[in-house]
Amino acid sequence: MAPQATEQAASRPADNLSIARAVRLWPIEEIAHRLGLPGEAVEPYGRGIAKLDLAALATLAERPQGRYVVVTSMTPTPPGEGKTTTAIGLVQGLQRLGHTATVALRQPSMGPTLGLKGGATGGGYSQVLPMERINLHLTGDIHAVAAAHNLLAAMVDNHLHHRLEPELDPREVCWQRVIDLNDRALRHLVMGLGGRGDGMPRQGGFEITAASEVMAVLALADSLADLRRRLGRLIVGLDRDGEPVTAEQIGAAGAMTVLLKEALKPNLLQTLEHAPALIHAGPFGNIAHGNSSIVADRIGLHASDFLVTEAGFGADMGAERFFNIKCRASGLVPDAAVLVVTVRALKYHSGRHRVVPGKPLPASLLGESPDEVREGGANLLKQIDNVRAHGLSPVVAINAFPGDHPSEVAAIRELCASLGVRAEVSHHVRDGGEGALGLAQALVEAIDEADETGSGFQFLYPAEMALAEKIERIAMRLYGAEGVDFAPGVRERLETWQHQGYGAFPVCIAKTHMSLSSDPGRLGAPTGWRLPVREVRLSAGAGFVYALAGDIRTMPGFSASPAATRLDIDEDGETVGLY
Amino acid sequence: MAPQATEQAASRPADNLSIARAVRLWPIEEIAHRLGLPGEAVEPYGRGIAKLDLAALATLAERPQGRYVVVTSMTPTPPGEGKTTTAIGLVQGLQRLGHTATVALRQPSMGPTLGLKGGATGGGYSQVLPMERINLHLTGDIHAVAAAHNLLAAMVDNHLHHRLEPELDPREVCWQRVIDLNDRALRHLVMGLGGRGDGMPRQGGFEITAASEVMAVLALADSLADLRRRLGRLIVGLDRDGEPVTAEQIGAAGAMTVLLKEALKPNLLQTLEHAPALIHAGPFGNIAHGNSSIVADRIGLHASDFLVTEAGFGADMGAERFFNIKCRASGLVPDAAVLVVTVRALKYHSGRHRVVPGKPLPASLLGESPDEVREGGANLLKQIDNVRAHGLSPVVAINAFPGDHPSEVAAIRELCASLGVRAEVSHHVRDGGEGALGLAQALVEAIDEADETGSGFQFLYPAEMALAEKIERIAMRLYGAEGVDFAPGVRERLETWQHQGYGAFPVCIAKTHMSLSSDPGRLGAPTGWRLPVREVRLSAGAGFVYALAGDIRTMPGFSASPAATRLDIDEDGETVGLY
Repeated sequence: MAPQATEQAASRPADNLSIARAVRLWPIEEIAHRLGLPGEAVEPYGRGIAKLDLAALATLAERPQGRYVVVTSMTPTPPGEGKTTTAIGLVQGLQRLGHTATVALRQPSMGPTLGLKGGATGGGYSQVLPMERINLHLTGDIHAVAAAHNLLAAMVDNHLHHRLEPELDPREVCWQRVIDLNDRALRHLVMGLGGRGDGMPRQGGFEITAASEVMAVLALADSLADLRRRLGRLIVGLDRDGEPVTAEQIGAAGAMTVLLKEALKPNLLQTLEHAPALIHAGPFGNIAHGNSSIVADRIGLHASDFLVTEAGFGADMGAERFFNIKCRASGLVPDAAVLVVTVRALKYHSGRHRVVPGKPLPASLLGESPDEVREGGANLLKQIDNVRAHGLSPVVAINAFPGDHPSEVAAIRELCASLGVRAEVSHHVRDGGEGALGLAQALVEAIDEADETGSGFQFLYPAEMALAEKIERIAMRLYGAEGVDFAPGVRERLETWQHQGYGAFPVCIAKTHMSLSSDPGRLGAPTGWRLPVREVRLSAGAGFVYALAGDIRTMPGFSASPAATRLDIDEDGETVGLY
Repeated sequence: MAPQATEQAASRPADNLSIARAVRLWPIEEIAHRLGLPGEAVEPYGRGIAKLDLAALATLAERPQGRYVVVTSMTPTPPGEGKTTTAIGLVQGLQRLGHTATVALRQPSMGPTLGLKGGATGGGYSQVLPMERINLHLTGDIHAVAAAHNLLAAMVDNHLHHRLEPELDPREVCWQRVIDLNDRALRHLVMGLGGRGDGMPRQGGFEITAASEVMAVLALADSLADLRRRLGRLIVGLDRDGEPVTAEQIGAAGAMTVLLKEALKPNLLQTLEHAPALIHAGPFGNIAHGNSSIVADRIGLHASDFLVTEAGFGADMGAERFFNIKCRASGLVPDAAVLVVTVRALKYHSGRHRVVPGKPLPASLLGESPDEVREGGANLLKQIDNVRAHGLSPVVAINAFPGDHPSEVAAIRELCASLGVRAEVSHHVRDGGEGALGLAQALVEAIDEADETGSGFQFLYPAEMALAEKIERIAMRLYGAEGVDFAPGVRERLETWQHQGYGAFPVCIAKTHMSLSSDPGRLGAPTGWRLPVREVRLSAGAGFVYALAGDIRTMPGFSASPAATRLDIDEDGETVGLY
């Protein structure tokens, strides 16, 4: 069998599992106690997991705030470059340096776990535990989001069925249903069939729960009252006069809030080295902002010296939204950014390797080739620039893989040095926190330096900039586009929202995460292209406008051999096939 | 405003809530400790709730077994006669007599809670707490059932999409999807639309999660390994040769089991008087057996002197299935049955009052009328006879309401005395365990008497009886039918299953719960009628055959003013509108 770049000692599934099983979890109360959280705020939810009661944490805000660090990456290869393991390894490294550090992550969606990729809880010696609970159900937050979302959908159809006021136009209902599975057969359907008693026939469909605006709302709400207000603003469709109808008008927002009361409490877990981990909310990274919750970050920031959070996809996407959507909503100011790169991703961005999504990376990526690293470096340099556009100087984390060659690592160091950016090789997958000591130290130094120079965070655009201009600003300044081509009617739509009072919203551009451009085939740092925006939509509850620049799937499908077929229990009742 | 029979001091919603909020929950570990459960088996899931790890409870089986008591009722009025409050009050009464007693209940479905009836956690001074968690999500078991069920559905459609072997006939897929909501627009739909990449177009639909066979399987499984086996046997449709295709063949049973691992652990809670309550699984009471889980009953039986469980609907339905499906599956032998009656239900069965489902009971039911009680008594006598058909002599619990007249209660006592059956008025809603002391005492005496006389439980029919004959036996012996009219083809279908090895299965008759007959309008104890069976279906995983004798709705719809519209949070973040 030919060697494959993904087949590496420390990230082999069996090893992840055996490493995880060899560790004895600390009682979650102990983790909470070390964070100084009051006991009454900690509600255990099974072994090693607790929900944190926001009401009981009100006094936490009086404590000084730690440093706010976002982990992002260069444009990734299909299997990803290890942002999650780096974020976990980094807090373990910071902890070994004597700091308190908490990692905040999104809750993985169950559909992809059962479909393609197995779990999403880190790997090697940088994992969050217990893996099985995190990947399946956790404390039920995603199910609660689906229940709240689908309650609104059922009440919308009930509204049509009973012809209640305001009278909805059945052709203009925009509130779909959701389910946390890969179920392509539910993408498009005709429902309300059967007869007079079975609803109003109309076209509908399902998206995966992570794509629900309710998930984005949960991630952006900063209190139960704020959650209630945002849910009330959700737009479900248009009435007969073309005016938007909200969840408040349908009478669903109160019940949705009640259904989400437990889900709004962040989930506290621990890493392999017993560093605190907050896993909370998991909105999509393209049609939504792809970041974990504000309430979790706020707890971690006031309870530890460092709160390290991961933003989805590359710096052009997840980090941009972290800065311009999430930080704008929370008012929290980030102190630093860590940009994860790998030798293999840089070689991939040279464009000399054929990579097929869903297949292992090709063996050709394993050959020593510092030149390819330099060729692909354009992507890294652009993503560094994208972080700098927000006033922060990133620390580059070179996530080490066993097949890396010293000449290739040296090439990355040279690239970073040319821009005056710190770069550290990190062996957190192989060695846990010990392997991330250099990275942790570099992060501390970068923050100290920024304190000295007085440099700091800034938004990419002001709230008062016109919506169309915001899209152009992101496309041209971050993606490297020459301009934006709006499809007919799109500018008018944005102007309408401007007049309706949504003009101060940030924007979220839904494009491929496989390229800085809107074409997944264009690697490196593409130039000479324009961003096509074919449609814009309003997330009135979450509080942003999103622009569709490409085919964005909001309901995945299973392959002919989904991961679920390999999942089972063994004779001892232990789960097998999940990693 | 005219007085209404349902508007009574102790069961008014506001009172339920204020009573519940005035009680300080004990730590759930304390409740578990008093049951003698080992600490490592108890996994807290938020305040006052724990899951019980079956693996850590293996040694419990060595402890002596307590008494097994089922709470059933006469044929109920639409709002129900208080089986849940009676079961809760009874364990509180037994506890006051110095016994240890655990109540086992079904988990309420969220759809109806949000639709019509508010919560289902008892009432007055006989409630299980915390009410909000029980009625919404609890520990996520119903969501896990839906996830497992819908994973199989998605894999079935994926099987069709990729044309995998064995080749399913898309017109013969019988595995629907489920959701825990009242959503009539999802009853009948055409899915798989959109194009070649979006699945195979076919007709489908959703049922409420309580109607899922997976829910029945969860309730009947006696271990994780048994759960795995049963899930493998689920039939999803027919192949091109008309042969059944199972979840095992689809490759879904292992993953479904893994998704249900946490859900198989019973949920421990407490009553207002800190008696242990196990709330676990909630299968439908018509197309399924309508009883809580076997694993929960087994824990309660070995950990306390009495395990009191409630079976859905009247004795002809829930109790019959408790005896002939649940006890047959578990091998557990019931010691006693409590039959709940109310003055108002007896008057209702006189047929002299017009009751509309969804509306309050009419004021006419409040007038003193012992004659109507006697007229309606035919139903009580028949349901007593139905319990006796299983070798047990029931204790009749007269669930007291403030509007009851002494002459009416006396009439019930006379009816029971005429059959030599103990009858006790129970004030558990008004007075908690104190109000149920007489009932508890009568139950203890009835069990002692049965011990002395050596009388005891028997099945209504042997496993080896033919399936059609089993249906006839239940219809004629319990319902009072003169016979069964099988629609064309039904007998043949039953015979086919007989030949395929399903002949030893018990049967479950899906009919209205509003009458002993299959016609909800026929009150009392109807005679001179035949049971029409229009269709039979096989629940190969749960292990029973069910017969449809009437229009059985497996997906409810919301009214024009569902309870959800009144649910909200107040300024302190407290839930309002749930009761």
